[in-house]
Amino acid sequence: MPKKLQTPIVVINFKTFSEATGRRAIELAKKAQKVNDETHISIGVAPQFADIATVAEAVQIPVFAQHVDAIRAGNCTGHVLAESVREAGAVGTLINHSERQLRLSDIDRVIRITQEVGLISVACANNPSISAAVATLKPDILAIEPPELIGTGIPASKAKPEVVTDTIKLVRKVNPKVTILCGAGISRGEDVAAALKLGVQGVLVASGIVKAKDPYTVLREFAQAARIKRV
Amino acid sequence: MPKKLQTPIVVINFKTFSEATGRRAIELAKKAQKVNDETHISIGVAPQFADIATVAEAVQIPVFAQHVDAIRAGNCTGHVLAESVREAGAVGTLINHSERQLRLSDIDRVIRITQEVGLISVACANNPSISAAVATLKPDILAIEPPELIGTGIPASKAKPEVVTDTIKLVRKVNPKVTILCGAGISRGEDVAAALKLGVQGVLVASGIVKAKDPYTVLREFAQAARIKRV
Amino acid sequence: MPKKLQTPIVVINFKTFSEATGRRAIELAKKAQKVNDETHISIGVAPQFADIATVAEAVQIPVFAQHVDAIRAGNCTGHVLAESVREAGAVGTLINHSERQLRLSDIDRVIRITQEVGLISVACANNPSISAAVATLKPDILAIEPPELIGTGIPASKAKPEVVTDTIKLVRKVNPKVTILCGAGISRGEDVAAALKLGVQGVLVASGIVKAKDPYTVLREFAQAARIKRV
Amino acid sequence: MPKKLQTPIVVINFKTFSEATGRRAIELAKKAQKVNDETHISIGVAPQFADIATVAEAVQIPVFAQHVDAIRAGNCTGHVLAESVREAGAVGTLINHSERQLRLSDIDRVIRITQEVGLISVACANNPSISAAVATLKPDILAIEPPELIGTGIPASKAKPEVVTDTIKLVRKVNPKVTILCGAGISRGEDVAAALKLGVQGVLVASGIVKAKDPYTVLREFAQAARIKRV
Repeated sequence: MPKKLQTPIVVINFKTFSEATGRRAIELAKKAQKVNDETHISIGVAPQFADIATVAEAVQIPVFAQHVDAIRAGNCTGHVLAESVREAGAVGTLINHSERQLRLSDIDRVIRITQEVGLISVACANNPSISAAVATLKPDILAIEPPELIGTGIPASKAKPEVVTDTIKLVRKVNPKVTILCGAGISRGEDVAAALKLGVQGVLVASGIVKAKDPYTVLREFAQAARIKRV
Repeated sequence: MPKKLQTPIVVINFKTFSEATGRRAIELAKKAQKVNDETHISIGVAPQFADIATVAEAVQIPVFAQHVDAIRAGNCTGHVLAESVREAGAVGTLINHSERQLRLSDIDRVIRITQEVGLISVACANNPSISAAVATLKPDILAIEPPELIGTGIPASKAKPEVVTDTIKLVRKVNPKVTILCGAGISRGEDVAAALKLGVQGVLVASGIVKAKDPYTVLREFAQAARIKRV
Repeated sequence: MPKKLQTPIVVINFKTFSEATGRRAIELAKKAQKVNDETHISIGVAPQFADIATVAEAVQIPVFAQHVDAIRAGNCTGHVLAESVREAGAVGTLINHSERQLRLSDIDRVIRITQEVGLISVACANNPSISAAVATLKPDILAIEPPELIGTGIPASKAKPEVVTDTIKLVRKVNPKVTILCGAGISRGEDVAAALKLGVQGVLVASGIVKAKDPYTVLREFAQAARIKRV
Repeated sequence: MPKKLQTPIVVINFKTFSEATGRRAIELAKKAQKVNDETHISIGVAPQFADIATVAEAVQIPVFAQHVDAIRAGNCTGHVLAESVREAGAVGTLINHSERQLRLSDIDRVIRITQEVGLISVACANNPSISAAVATLKPDILAIEPPELIGTGIPASKAKPEVVTDTIKLVRKVNPKVTILCGAGISRGEDVAAALKLGVQGVLVASGIVKAKDPYTVLREFAQAARIKRV
């Protein structure tokens, strides 16, 4: 699987939504695959741990874990080993999502572990200054998500465009190369277009797709908006 | 799958051992299945989250998660939803393992969640008084594991038989029905026999099997010892 | 100071309220002392860590810490050592308050530490089953506080009397001697009377006193209500 | 009290050592005061929360808390409020000590809180890359302490000088102004001199002073070494 992702990219975080658990995770991933194939816009999915293997078996698009622990193989019952999610078929993992935040030294350790194990690291941050702090730790991808907008349907690119532009500015000072995504509140194609226009290379979405009445149609709208941008 | 387990039972905790990750988790589970079939002693396995689906697909013996979080479906990125591990094929879950300890109110909540979702709850405890505390919360199974013996090859049934008998005595005062397992340091058939003789209904093992040169042979020895006890 | 407290008792949790921080903590403690002296109903106070020494210097009534960590002297920067709060003048400590919950094994450890160090343990619990679990660990005092009522002004004794009576029933099965307090939502003398009538030996209060316009008058009303009960 | 500290500075972390708890914390702080007065090298002390008030009452040198929580006044029983330690007499606080690590977003929040409340922030980091991450959050002081050297008597300035120089280099890229301390394993005057020579503005020490047979003499040796450097 490619360590290098094609951008722009839309990453769908399945969270622990019942609409994206088990059998329904596979169905949703297949819709993402379909849109990926039809639009040639890269779509990634981040299902729950127990769904990684079956989702990765069902689709060819990049599959991400939602979290891995800052541990190595051993006596760590109930924790998430990087090697385990990779062998199950994940190509990368979210790190420090606002709903699963880590201690700073563990973010550092997990990023190093992902490098050793061969997983793409998608480190999340809440605000511009935290984004810059995370960017100094050299993850492959940085995702900025103002937590107060999560699940609101109000995208950062609209409500707080300065959060996105400040993030880009601060992050570029300390890390010129990291891929930057933005997330929280993205629910329409125009939100995706606005985000890309502000300068990010992709979006991290969740309820906007997972809880949509027709996820395929909304995701397709997202991809179209991203496609125009790319051209 | 049966909500009621047959006892005596040997539950193998795969932890995050590399010997029991991914493909090797499936191989080990198949050996457990073989011993289960040959000896008619119930063997359960607790692989990592990302391995539950493939392990449960490969074997018929009971598969347990190593942990679930005290959450319901929703905005809980990176957490472990009970419904998710059940749909992946787990029939139960460890709770509060000494390597993944929970706040007391979360143990209570997880036990209730497992009841609602239909998972067998295997709550772990470190010492007799904590065992009694956990037993008041009415899990299906209680597992006592003195953490100082984990991975030592010195079984509680030998080094600290009074820990096991005190646990049984204290637990029975507050909960006459709960199934009791003991663990930590179990590495030979005689350790299993000694544990059952002290009055528990099964054992929770990890490195004793997973890191054995020949897990099948050791597990078979465990099962033989348990079988004699049953007769 | 007495290891044995006189009951009925009213314990005031100062939390991190600005009305009860620093100089204002001392003022509030002095009002508690005054009511204690006037009514001969025992009043305890639980100020913030940094206020324990000055509060204990200013009053003779029992002073409690709000929490201590499950640690012994050593390399534990930023943690709360039982010996430290005792030497500063505390006679006891809250444990596992719903706003500072502990892992089960740490509740067990902290109760043992308080016994060794000579502090009165006031272990908190959210509901009847958790109360019973905590009671098996033999704290000196058990405080039941349904967290959903904290700060509401609606007392458990009124909104959920069965929570209190169920707690007493379940706790007495496993621990006939522990002193039982109830808390959350207590804001008037009649709430105190109702709680004592349900069978508890005291109340744990916070905003009902700390955020009252006239804490002295409300506390005096509490003590009067408790006094009638005692007679 | 001065928001601006004089450098070079020696900050003594009292941890939860019994040698520096309660009455003995005051004694040790007085020795620090004496060395401060005799050598005109700035000495700071970081006692336990419950000792801040009495220590700050007994000495004029800067007193630091060992930790504050990422909270504001309110329903936060058992947590450490910045206003509380400041009113007790602290002029600053350690943040994210390796024994009390925080989630990244909480480090960011605590630094902002200290700015609002008027406390000097001393943010700790384990290695050069984490130091740079912390430095982007603009604390007043950054302290680098390789945790593997804590309590060993082997100073970073000797065992791993490149950790110190790499830290300075990486930190200066993202934050040219922050004061930098180093710590872990410092037990002799020459260790202090070596550290200052590598380019830091002070040291963070603990057992090297607190557990010394004669803390006054060792601290005086530290100050002499720092003094020479200053000249």
